[in-house]
Amino acid sequence: MNDAVRLIDVKEAIQADNERVAEDLRARLAETRTFLLNLMSAPGAGKTRTILKTLEVLRDRLRFGVLEADIESTVDAERVAATGISAVQLRTGGFCHLDASMVAKGLAALDLEALDVVIIENVGNLVCPAEFDTGAIKNVMILSVPEGDDKPLKYPLMFTVSDVLLVNKVDYLGLSDFDLAAMRERVVRLNPDIQIFEISAKTGQGIDQWAAWLEGEARRFIDA
Amino acid sequence: MNDAVRLIDVKEAIQADNERVAEDLRARLAETRTFLLNLMSAPGAGKTRTILKTLEVLRDRLRFGVLEADIESTVDAERVAATGISAVQLRTGGFCHLDASMVAKGLAALDLEALDVVIIENVGNLVCPAEFDTGAIKNVMILSVPEGDDKPLKYPLMFTVSDVLLVNKVDYLGLSDFDLAAMRERVVRLNPDIQIFEISAKTGQGIDQWAAWLEGEARRFIDA
Repeated sequence: MNDAVRLIDVKEAIQADNERVAEDLRARLAETRTFLLNLMSAPGAGKTRTILKTLEVLRDRLRFGVLEADIESTVDAERVAATGISAVQLRTGGFCHLDASMVAKGLAALDLEALDVVIIENVGNLVCPAEFDTGAIKNVMILSVPEGDDKPLKYPLMFTVSDVLLVNKVDYLGLSDFDLAAMRERVVRLNPDIQIFEISAKTGQGIDQWAAWLEGEARRFIDA
Repeated sequence: MNDAVRLIDVKEAIQADNERVAEDLRARLAETRTFLLNLMSAPGAGKTRTILKTLEVLRDRLRFGVLEADIESTVDAERVAATGISAVQLRTGGFCHLDASMVAKGLAALDLEALDVVIIENVGNLVCPAEFDTGAIKNVMILSVPEGDDKPLKYPLMFTVSDVLLVNKVDYLGLSDFDLAAMRERVVRLNPDIQIFEISAKTGQGIDQWAAWLEGEARRFIDA
């Protein structure tokens, strides 16, 4: 077990540094009154499409920016930028998550004074992003129906650190043996305070309720 | 960039150690004539169900064992063990991938002399598992249709290191805008030698062709 122990020590040191950078970042966001939201999920759960639908509903009510993180490629930032919203692509170059200093570099490319909300689309991964504080004010995760209702059992930390769970692709429920009640019970056991919204970023179902939550939290932060 | 550079150095040192352990493991597998297969995918792409369907087809023709890796929980090993196949659950305790020494510990719990094929179900993750040689003879990945056809653009290393791509949940194609031809073109550009099978672990579609590939490769290794 020596190898494993050494790796854990390194990780803890990195995480302690990261926590300090994240706290500094939150202090700066309080000054510019910019609500930073960290959106996480497995690959292909629908993060980009959910962001685009959310922007459709709220873009006339709040000023948005988006940080897109990917190992490679700039396709997601291009999709967001095509709507006229400020988008920055962060290429992690192999890293499986964003940390607070990567986010700070991304935010430096945006005019925070002119933005009410910045959404971070984290790397598609249910493991590593849950371990690193990005400096965000709130953490949101997506679980898509085709991934299965057992994910809270397998990736408990992600469900524990998230303030909101978006259950996406509910339009697939008819084709699937996904048990919504069992999934909810598993999630609430890990995190009794989590807010759960059922959505379809494809059809738009449930997006208004989720967007209302986001607008409420953002306004509360901005007006504080 | 100091934090990021330090992290990369640590990673490289760990990977160099890992490569030596992986080579030792492969030498041992050649002695026991045990074909070790590493199965990787995002969370919820259908790894366990694909393993169960593959065992249904091949369990009377080859002697199987399974190593199940998860951050937490033993549900997958329980599902495999319920079929009467030897299964070991490796709890990674937060690690996002398996390395060769973790696999060696798992294999030590199996009687390799009595097994023809051991399938590793890696942690559900398209990033980290691609970076760590597990000691396997062949690497196989699953991409499920609901994840989207853009995944080769975003997680290129996983597609590059895999010998086989199983495109799972093809029964969802009718509901989805997944472009099979575009996905294939992206994958083959990264990895011209990859074998691609379209399957549904739910309906059984395509499993026979994939199982025939696995049996052929395993027999070639065992008889070498």
